[in-house]
Amino acid sequence: MAAQGVEAPVKRPQIDILNDALNSGTFVQVRRMLNSLPAAEVADLLESSPPHKRQILWQLIDLEHEGEVLQEINTDIGGEFLREMDAEELIAVTEGLETDDLVDILQQLPEEVLNEVLQSMDSQDRQRLELILPYDEDTAGGLMNTDTITVRPSHTMELVLRYLRRHEEIPPFTDTLIVVNRKDEFLGLLPIRHVLVSDPSMTVREIMQTDCQAIPASMADSEVASLFERDDLISAPVVDDQTNKLLGRITIDDVVDVIIEDADHSLMSMAGLGEDEDTFSRVYRAAPRRAIWLGINLLTAFIAAAAINVFEETIEQIVALAILMPVVASMGGVAGSQTLTIMVRAMALGQISRSNIHWLLNRELAVAALNAILWAAVVAVVAVAWFDDTRIGTVIAMAMVINLLTAAMAGVLLPLLLKSMKIDPALAGSVVLTTITDVVGFVSFLGLATYFYL
Amino acid sequence: MAAQGVEAPVKRPQIDILNDALNSGTFVQVRRMLNSLPAAEVADLLESSPPHKRQILWQLIDLEHEGEVLQEINTDIGGEFLREMDAEELIAVTEGLETDDLVDILQQLPEEVLNEVLQSMDSQDRQRLELILPYDEDTAGGLMNTDTITVRPSHTMELVLRYLRRHEEIPPFTDTLIVVNRKDEFLGLLPIRHVLVSDPSMTVREIMQTDCQAIPASMADSEVASLFERDDLISAPVVDDQTNKLLGRITIDDVVDVIIEDADHSLMSMAGLGEDEDTFSRVYRAAPRRAIWLGINLLTAFIAAAAINVFEETIEQIVALAILMPVVASMGGVAGSQTLTIMVRAMALGQISRSNIHWLLNRELAVAALNAILWAAVVAVVAVAWFDDTRIGTVIAMAMVINLLTAAMAGVLLPLLLKSMKIDPALAGSVVLTTITDVVGFVSFLGLATYFYL
Repeated sequence: MAAQGVEAPVKRPQIDILNDALNSGTFVQVRRMLNSLPAAEVADLLESSPPHKRQILWQLIDLEHEGEVLQEINTDIGGEFLREMDAEELIAVTEGLETDDLVDILQQLPEEVLNEVLQSMDSQDRQRLELILPYDEDTAGGLMNTDTITVRPSHTMELVLRYLRRHEEIPPFTDTLIVVNRKDEFLGLLPIRHVLVSDPSMTVREIMQTDCQAIPASMADSEVASLFERDDLISAPVVDDQTNKLLGRITIDDVVDVIIEDADHSLMSMAGLGEDEDTFSRVYRAAPRRAIWLGINLLTAFIAAAAINVFEETIEQIVALAILMPVVASMGGVAGSQTLTIMVRAMALGQISRSNIHWLLNRELAVAALNAILWAAVVAVVAVAWFDDTRIGTVIAMAMVINLLTAAMAGVLLPLLLKSMKIDPALAGSVVLTTITDVVGFVSFLGLATYFYL
Repeated sequence: MAAQGVEAPVKRPQIDILNDALNSGTFVQVRRMLNSLPAAEVADLLESSPPHKRQILWQLIDLEHEGEVLQEINTDIGGEFLREMDAEELIAVTEGLETDDLVDILQQLPEEVLNEVLQSMDSQDRQRLELILPYDEDTAGGLMNTDTITVRPSHTMELVLRYLRRHEEIPPFTDTLIVVNRKDEFLGLLPIRHVLVSDPSMTVREIMQTDCQAIPASMADSEVASLFERDDLISAPVVDDQTNKLLGRITIDDVVDVIIEDADHSLMSMAGLGEDEDTFSRVYRAAPRRAIWLGINLLTAFIAAAAINVFEETIEQIVALAILMPVVASMGGVAGSQTLTIMVRAMALGQISRSNIHWLLNRELAVAALNAILWAAVVAVVAVAWFDDTRIGTVIAMAMVINLLTAAMAGVLLPLLLKSMKIDPALAGSVVLTTITDVVGFVSFLGLATYFYL
């Protein structure tokens, strides 16, 4: 029955076709399919396959196709394939890759294999690579390619067009030519669409845009993504932080990957998972990280248990409290995680600052107060009807109000506090928040009961 | 103290500068700032401001600037501004907007205002608009612009270049010209970067790419996004589903917005929030939706309470059970939501199908079993040491194992079941899952205790 609901989006039942072919042993068909699909789709198929099938599929992909697939696939999975290759295979596979993808692959190799691969390249390619290799994957330098086309300010449009025609191919995502001086320092940009409509005798200097800045190589990748979004860029030049010399350019395809990763980060972190988590990772890879997360949560669960323990005697006398106490804790947890989720996303978007945080805290408190009054009343009525005891209604309603207001306050302030301590709010926030709402929920409910009953 | 941690990314303390200026009443400075910043940044500033400040800021933006800001801003917020304008203002503001953004705006207007605005346009613009207006915002038709540049197969490169030069400006994101026949039916694409390097005497027919398909106007926007990602597109032609006639084109800037919205969907839905939630919405807007979510969760909390109620007598005799039972429930909830998050993301990526779901279920069960054994042992030791009772250790360990295995199974199967029932797994999954892990946690723990003790 479950399988009925699993129908993948119509566009891609390929994974099922592929599997049927694999299972029936018609490898010829599988091989033909894998080598005719676009690399991005093959990468999707590999990512959607359990590890043992991945290995089989990988063997069936032609060597000259493997490089393209490697640049599209999840780094962890690609790394596994790479570790099994010798230098010779690596050299064959990495031939013709874009520099940034090549660097991503090379950075995963052990030193000696890396050197062997570097030795195999011609000196120009090697020099380019050695320029990029030092930059971290998460910076503009790590995102850039070296396939820039540069022009000088004194060139005329006619010369520029002739110069372009001399290229066998203009690299994809080339919407602008980069204007540099003799020292290769960045001066401005010349959009090709302006070249096309300009008088052939005009010079680059007359047409180029100078109100755009080049991206320093050390800029964080998510900041690069913001720039691309803000200015609707297709490509942007990258320069050395100190010298302003042109190093390369970043293209939108790689920026989209950054955007997706950043967006996945909050979702996955809030469940204690990595944003690049491989859906089909093996047990021994998936288990340890989750064990740690469960361990941390166990600790917080015991803290909550210890809070209940304080009121052992009260519970002994009124068992209804044990029955109702999870209600108070759970409502606080749910309300708190709503506020936390809003904060985590707003912080990721850079929306939160000292000038609006007080307004937001007040709004959350007001929303919590309204909902607390509404649902506390409902809970009170149900509790009184259930246990035929008016006091328990009063107690649970008061505890609910306390816990929902606490949840709102913690949901706003906790992520700020965590961030100021350089802890990722998306990762740590939900654990700490649930501990707070559990403890406050149990203590307020059982504490008030102790006060009213004993 | 909190404010220290709130420092927005270095690139944008603008919101604070802006606020200081607003608070000190130097509106001239605010006006200058707002009208000199790129529209996307002004939109960010408005989105990062509480509603009352938004109104003030909006008044300070020049009319000719407002249109650009409207196309960048969250639809809800933009809609509020629009509702306060009369037809005349609307006509002024919408002048010069791209068709797709104009349509988004027009779709939010009441019929009569819409007609007034339409009447004010020249007939060509109006015809174009009326072509697009029927398409839903979430389809290719709703994403497209009509600023296409088309060529015929028989044209030479020389003619194409001359034709381009006749344009005053080539629209942004024009990386390809669209090849159509006399009936305006789509034939293929002519990348500008190929035009630039080709012999001037060659014809469009010789150079154009025909292995690319145009996007039918009814295609869902997230499918469009997948296509752009897979094929690294900058722009793509949109055709009528039936006639194959060219309607317009979609550009990457609008696709990136779709990608971000889709990615936010899972995160926000899992907390019962909308993906386009306005961070600074007013209380009366934020409260109702959250009230519903809390109400649903309250219902499930009472279901769990009812499960506990069954074992009232057992708890009466052994209070330690009341203290420890939240531990079992909470561990199940945490483990389950990890599995659920992995499933929700994998399903959003289209990775799940009948051919890999069994492997995934087994993997999750194996991970759960390993972690269950590990943490059940720890919990048992702690429980025995705490309450000086070996039986309680056995009972809680067994209950933990049962609940973690249940959590893994529910985490995998529940989203599939929900999807087959056309219910969004990201939205409903966490509520139902927590109910399951709470009930199973309480029942297995208290049930086993009843069996062992009484």
